[in-house]
Amino acid sequence: MNYKLNDIPERSVKPRQKGLTMVMDKGLSLRQVEDFIEVAGVHTDIVKLGWATSFVTPNLKEKLAIYRSAGIPVYFGGTLFEAFAIRNQFDDYCRVLEEFGMEYAEISDGSMDIEHEEKCEFIHKLSKQVTVISEVGSKDATKIFAPYKWIKLMKAEIEAGSWKVIAEAREGGNVGIYRGTGEVREGLVDEILTQIPEETIIWEAPQKEQQVWFIKLIGTNVNLGNIAPAEVIPLETIRLGLRGDTFDYFLNKK
Amino acid sequence: MNYKLNDIPERSVKPRQKGLTMVMDKGLSLRQVEDFIEVAGVHTDIVKLGWATSFVTPNLKEKLAIYRSAGIPVYFGGTLFEAFAIRNQFDDYCRVLEEFGMEYAEISDGSMDIEHEEKCEFIHKLSKQVTVISEVGSKDATKIFAPYKWIKLMKAEIEAGSWKVIAEAREGGNVGIYRGTGEVREGLVDEILTQIPEETIIWEAPQKEQQVWFIKLIGTNVNLGNIAPAEVIPLETIRLGLRGDTFDYFLNKK
Amino acid sequence: MNYKLNDIPERSVKPRQKGLTMVMDKGLSLRQVEDFIEVAGVHTDIVKLGWATSFVTPNLKEKLAIYRSAGIPVYFGGTLFEAFAIRNQFDDYCRVLEEFGMEYAEISDGSMDIEHEEKCEFIHKLSKQVTVISEVGSKDATKIFAPYKWIKLMKAEIEAGSWKVIAEAREGGNVGIYRGTGEVREGLVDEILTQIPEETIIWEAPQKEQQVWFIKLIGTNVNLGNIAPAEVIPLETIRLGLRGDTFDYFLNKK
Repeated sequence: MNYKLNDIPERSVKPRQKGLTMVMDKGLSLRQVEDFIEVAGVHTDIVKLGWATSFVTPNLKEKLAIYRSAGIPVYFGGTLFEAFAIRNQFDDYCRVLEEFGMEYAEISDGSMDIEHEEKCEFIHKLSKQVTVISEVGSKDATKIFAPYKWIKLMKAEIEAGSWKVIAEAREGGNVGIYRGTGEVREGLVDEILTQIPEETIIWEAPQKEQQVWFIKLIGTNVNLGNIAPAEVIPLETIRLGLRGDTFDYFLNKK
Repeated sequence: MNYKLNDIPERSVKPRQKGLTMVMDKGLSLRQVEDFIEVAGVHTDIVKLGWATSFVTPNLKEKLAIYRSAGIPVYFGGTLFEAFAIRNQFDDYCRVLEEFGMEYAEISDGSMDIEHEEKCEFIHKLSKQVTVISEVGSKDATKIFAPYKWIKLMKAEIEAGSWKVIAEAREGGNVGIYRGTGEVREGLVDEILTQIPEETIIWEAPQKEQQVWFIKLIGTNVNLGNIAPAEVIPLETIRLGLRGDTFDYFLNKK
Repeated sequence: MNYKLNDIPERSVKPRQKGLTMVMDKGLSLRQVEDFIEVAGVHTDIVKLGWATSFVTPNLKEKLAIYRSAGIPVYFGGTLFEAFAIRNQFDDYCRVLEEFGMEYAEISDGSMDIEHEEKCEFIHKLSKQVTVISEVGSKDATKIFAPYKWIKLMKAEIEAGSWKVIAEAREGGNVGIYRGTGEVREGLVDEILTQIPEETIIWEAPQKEQQVWFIKLIGTNVNLGNIAPAEVIPLETIRLGLRGDTFDYFLNKK
């Protein structure tokens, strides 16, 4: 920190199990990755190359190398797994992960229909090769699950071998745990938290109001995902009570 | 492509007549242009320096040189033509195009009232100097044309010498072929397509939902414009069925 | 300018007292600052490091040095003052300003409750150390002041030593002088302008429609703030009547 302010909420430090910031890179250049790391590397726990953007991203190996040399793990978005799985190319997917030296992978079913048991088998298999993050929730705004279903799916995936489960929101923040307006499905989140340990969940929260809501609910060290690269510094100030939105929240809690 | 996926829709390659991506640069620095080209150059067919931003853009010649050395044509937005034309400085405009070595130019009437015959004369004259792209549609949300009028204007402009006609949407995507909400005027687009060959039209589609709509209507290789530099990679994945929005669309079509 | 267009509105030049563009940097890297200055330095009068982002911004001294070497003054957002003040660390704040060689500072009360007399005392004290910009208006959308109150506060702060007063809008442009929708509180602005000289006010106007509204009301050389770095070139074209939004406004005024 650049100067001393008293009574700042205690922030966990890397490598974190709680208070993760997961950032979405949907096509940064090599130099833009360097710039991002300069500014936000110390606050970023893991980077997702959004959905299947890695298919068309140039200089992919060089990009991965830059993140790696900064000690920031990277993974390909879950839609890429789905693109391979739906084509019966899961073995190819495993080889791609190996070829690019990936240590993390996401398994999701946001765009395709798959038996949950089969999804869990994929998680189980892949968890022997890499650290698996799995995502619950559909990208289709019309597919809405009841809270007990979210809990059941999350539990099964953790049991199958997921390191963390992600609660779906897309880049826009308007499906899954949010309404089409971006508003949080509060009852859903509350109910999930009665059954699943909060440090096991990464809440996708691309919009500022969503980040604020989760920080007020769970605290400074909540796991948040799908953060745009330029929003990591702003998010860090919200976590610390240093932006208007949480300014008196942390002071009043004392 | 970085790895092999089966059943990916066939994408045209540069130099394209169909499947164009036209990108809007509204003030990138020289280094940002280099970064953009690194990431998206192979997917970008032509760049527009938005409206009259070229008037206040520093290092304009250097910027044009970077695009040129990457083989990406550049043109000044149509509002610049209008700014010269309304001041009776059309000859000056032609000299400016020459001075900067421009090979493309846009002629529009989105901000000024002009007889359509006169607009077509400008197109005719300018088409002897450069490749002309002309734009149909007003930037004024209250000026709405009937479909037959769009068709008549487009036909006359193509006949006058336009290489492509652009369907207006602005940077925001909320006028012309869209409603104020960004929703496509579907009947209008359908009717235009009964009369004008689709490869002759560039649809301005700055919003993701608009891109998805046109890709589902016309296919992978639809011409789309006013794409923000950072959205070219995401757009390419939508064209290829590798983002949630078109994930099963292309698979189901097979 | 890159070429000659007749009848362009006269734009003030730096160092300006009128027609200021205040830009918000909420976490640019050093290279991004250089890029910003290349493109927009000549059009930028002053830069704010948004709210308390300076607390977590790496390379802060290097960043300040780059702005300084381009002759662009920088200041820390008002929320940082508030973060120190509410912790009874005002003296620390003054030392931080000195340590970082700051020549400007903002005093606001958008996130905390403070007697206005006390705020004015802070302005008075700090104005002996640096040039003070003070901000009027709450970040809380539910706290709405009547116009006479805005005028009273602004007058008192100018008298206490503020160089300029800022009319609050946040980064989003949806509080203070705007409704939640971003629409200008027109009556409020009109009434303020009957009592406070317009060159003394910087209107936060992050949204394009807001910038257009103020330019049409006050003219090319209105002071506007909270402009995103990538929006300075677009704003400059709006000031000059070279974007659709003000295209015929300035021509019709002649």
